[in-house]
Amino acid sequence: MTTTQLVSEVKTWIYEASDQIKLSLNEVIDVKTKSNHRDLVTNIDQATERFLVEKIKKAYPEDHIVGEEGMSEKPTTTKGRVWVIDPIDGTMNFVLQQKNFCIMIGIFENGHPVLGFIYDVMADCFIYGGVETGVYLNGSPLPKVKDVALKDGLLGANGSMYAHDTLGTQQAGLEAMGVRILGCAGLDFISVIQGDQCGYISNLAPWDFAAGVALSEPLGLVCTYLDGSPYHILDDRRYFIVATKQAHADYMSILRKN
Amino acid sequence: MTTTQLVSEVKTWIYEASDQIKLSLNEVIDVKTKSNHRDLVTNIDQATERFLVEKIKKAYPEDHIVGEEGMSEKPTTTKGRVWVIDPIDGTMNFVLQQKNFCIMIGIFENGHPVLGFIYDVMADCFIYGGVETGVYLNGSPLPKVKDVALKDGLLGANGSMYAHDTLGTQQAGLEAMGVRILGCAGLDFISVIQGDQCGYISNLAPWDFAAGVALSEPLGLVCTYLDGSPYHILDDRRYFIVATKQAHADYMSILRKN
Repeated sequence: MTTTQLVSEVKTWIYEASDQIKLSLNEVIDVKTKSNHRDLVTNIDQATERFLVEKIKKAYPEDHIVGEEGMSEKPTTTKGRVWVIDPIDGTMNFVLQQKNFCIMIGIFENGHPVLGFIYDVMADCFIYGGVETGVYLNGSPLPKVKDVALKDGLLGANGSMYAHDTLGTQQAGLEAMGVRILGCAGLDFISVIQGDQCGYISNLAPWDFAAGVALSEPLGLVCTYLDGSPYHILDDRRYFIVATKQAHADYMSILRKN
Repeated sequence: MTTTQLVSEVKTWIYEASDQIKLSLNEVIDVKTKSNHRDLVTNIDQATERFLVEKIKKAYPEDHIVGEEGMSEKPTTTKGRVWVIDPIDGTMNFVLQQKNFCIMIGIFENGHPVLGFIYDVMADCFIYGGVETGVYLNGSPLPKVKDVALKDGLLGANGSMYAHDTLGTQQAGLEAMGVRILGCAGLDFISVIQGDQCGYISNLAPWDFAAGVALSEPLGLVCTYLDGSPYHILDDRRYFIVATKQAHADYMSILRKN
């Protein structure tokens, strides 16, 4: 199977999953909390991950899977092909707004991002592809992102980090033209990839950034942890930044001064 | 002319204005700053206000107009009919994203809101109507907004107020399920009116809230300045809140404790 065929196959799975999610909006959704009262999971998150894990395991039994809801055994190595799944990114928006949430899948080979898929289900905005295939928005190829400085762009931020001024977040926000808080990593990646924000800073787990980095890096964006070190898909949640090359450098400069 | 006919007429003007704005996106936009480097105005803001002011003056020469870009003499009294215009609300988004901005018009009679129009141009999301006609989203009547408590909803906030913790903003954000920063009052009003956020706190001029209050109050939402006093369309910029009845009370309680 070629990479292009794999893209088509995964897109089909994600569209099928999204149809099931949209049907579920007519039913009563079972909401539970995880680590705190704002960390939500629903039966739909779990059913969507289960659906995607089953598709992957059936088609590619040798591959490994890292999923937010733990429907598959977490691998101990990044050797081979690893799928990183966030079945519903932005569960709070899903529960409270029934929109502004994404299905995300990142595919890594030997630790390197190969393909990413971010689907804003209710807006029908699907960004997918990778370094080999190029990156597409609903079928149209996306150009490299313009290398905008922090001072000339909008910065997406995690609400809690911004309120607590974690690691220079507020200084970065002051240098930028403004701050946006969307409550969904997928929407922020979509925004940075389309050039609507020059960067996004948050506290992310691998399923929050795996798809995003596979889509961002081929377009010239820079993805690292906030200390500048490389991300890793088997890590726990860490402070993370995706930004234009210039905005990333501007943020690192703020961190050094702090 | 009936109120329903007036709604149709104003909608037509706003659609015409939005067509001109969309055409302008293919041209070089002339951006200038006003009070500070984040307070932008473009030739398109000015052209749009001029277009709307001319339509109103020709059709209703006795009426008064309050416009953000000052294309009409500000009235000294709220007697009679006053139109309050924000030709492009969210100019920063307009300049940097070419989306996520609104055209807004509020119509007041003897100081009372009669009709409101908020058009998210690029999303083609048009909310319009008032206390007499009911409120519509792209032709469909909108129901009363569910009276959600602050702790059960998302709070829209002004980025600067949230960073500086102005008047309990951060405490309110902590009590809420989360904070969203959209950078456009019109988008926040649309969000609260649709029940996607339980409230929105910002520092607003009359053109930022006039349309919103005319649409919000008929749906059971509460609009006041942050000290609880009534808004007034001839005031200068002031701290403002639109929220469900319960979330408004919750916020007032936070303010009293601070």
